[in-house]
Amino acid sequence: MRRYHHGDLRNALLTAARALLEAKGASALAVREIARQVGVTAPAAYHHFSNLDDIILGLAQVAAEELAAALREAGSAPSGRLLGMGRAYIAFACRNPQLYRLLFGDGLSTTSPARVEIDRLQQQIYTLVSAELPRAAETGETFGHGVFIWSVAHGLSLLLIDDRIAAADRQALVDSVLKLAGRGLRP
Amino acid sequence: MRRYHHGDLRNALLTAARALLEAKGASALAVREIARQVGVTAPAAYHHFSNLDDIILGLAQVAAEELAAALREAGSAPSGRLLGMGRAYIAFACRNPQLYRLLFGDGLSTTSPARVEIDRLQQQIYTLVSAELPRAAETGETFGHGVFIWSVAHGLSLLLIDDRIAAADRQALVDSVLKLAGRGLRP
Repeated sequence: MRRYHHGDLRNALLTAARALLEAKGASALAVREIARQVGVTAPAAYHHFSNLDDIILGLAQVAAEELAAALREAGSAPSGRLLGMGRAYIAFACRNPQLYRLLFGDGLSTTSPARVEIDRLQQQIYTLVSAELPRAAETGETFGHGVFIWSVAHGLSLLLIDDRIAAADRQALVDSVLKLAGRGLRP
Repeated sequence: MRRYHHGDLRNALLTAARALLEAKGASALAVREIARQVGVTAPAAYHHFSNLDDIILGLAQVAAEELAAALREAGSAPSGRLLGMGRAYIAFACRNPQLYRLLFGDGLSTTSPARVEIDRLQQQIYTLVSAELPRAAETGETFGHGVFIWSVAHGLSLLLIDDRIAAADRQALVDSVLKLAGRGLRP
């Protein structure tokens, strides 16, 4: 059995859980297997997480922090906020498909108390996505605008993750969809 | 055990599978349980479907037909094609949340041969969604426009199904998002 400092083991367990999640999906997550991968016993893992939902919640927190950091950084992109943040959101989802799904509660039992916390994390992301949207400040219609841009980013992310779109140049497609969100479909 | 005419039993099995899917999710689907619900033996069910994937494929076909019919009907709505078809698409997803997910392959094993057929059904839906989009005919940029409107409809459907949006008036929110897809976000 390997030995870890307190915080190190927590992080090592989360890192192993994240790798297992991306490799095999949420249904493959199990405390015993995650412990095995970092070389400790299951009881040692339970010292840091009281159950699997707790680990999933830890992963969702990591995901929300990474996505929020990427959105904040992109918000000052010279290409403009909408394009920059949209690109960053969709790139995060495509780079971490299973982690992105988990941020929407996939793999969490419907009765899990962790759902409340996931809802709170989602609210943070929504607030970031909809913050300072163009037009919003003028018209006060922030809500509909925020839901619109979130729908585009969420929908396109999942269509790409699920391989529903055959595009030779994915980045060009993402940019073209985000530009349409800016200028609209009508001629 | 109940007795059915040939085609009747096939339909009865699909109807029971659909009800079970919506009530308990794709993971609850099992040939034996579906057979039990219509009052026949499992071997009688296997006479119509060679395995569970075959039933799931049958459900996906039903879903694709219903959605296509709803989109075709809405395409001549006096409110305009974009608003009419968008409303119909999102209403179908919200009325049949589990069936809608199944149309994207949820619940199907990744190696299932039924995936090819699901991809074909999806292509049909995409063709309908993107058909005669405004502007598309003029600019020839049909692909990006189709993906854009599909992203909006798919993203908003899933955010609503997953209860990610707290909206007092869902229909008003759907309309406001679809109108933004038409005119764009920028002032």
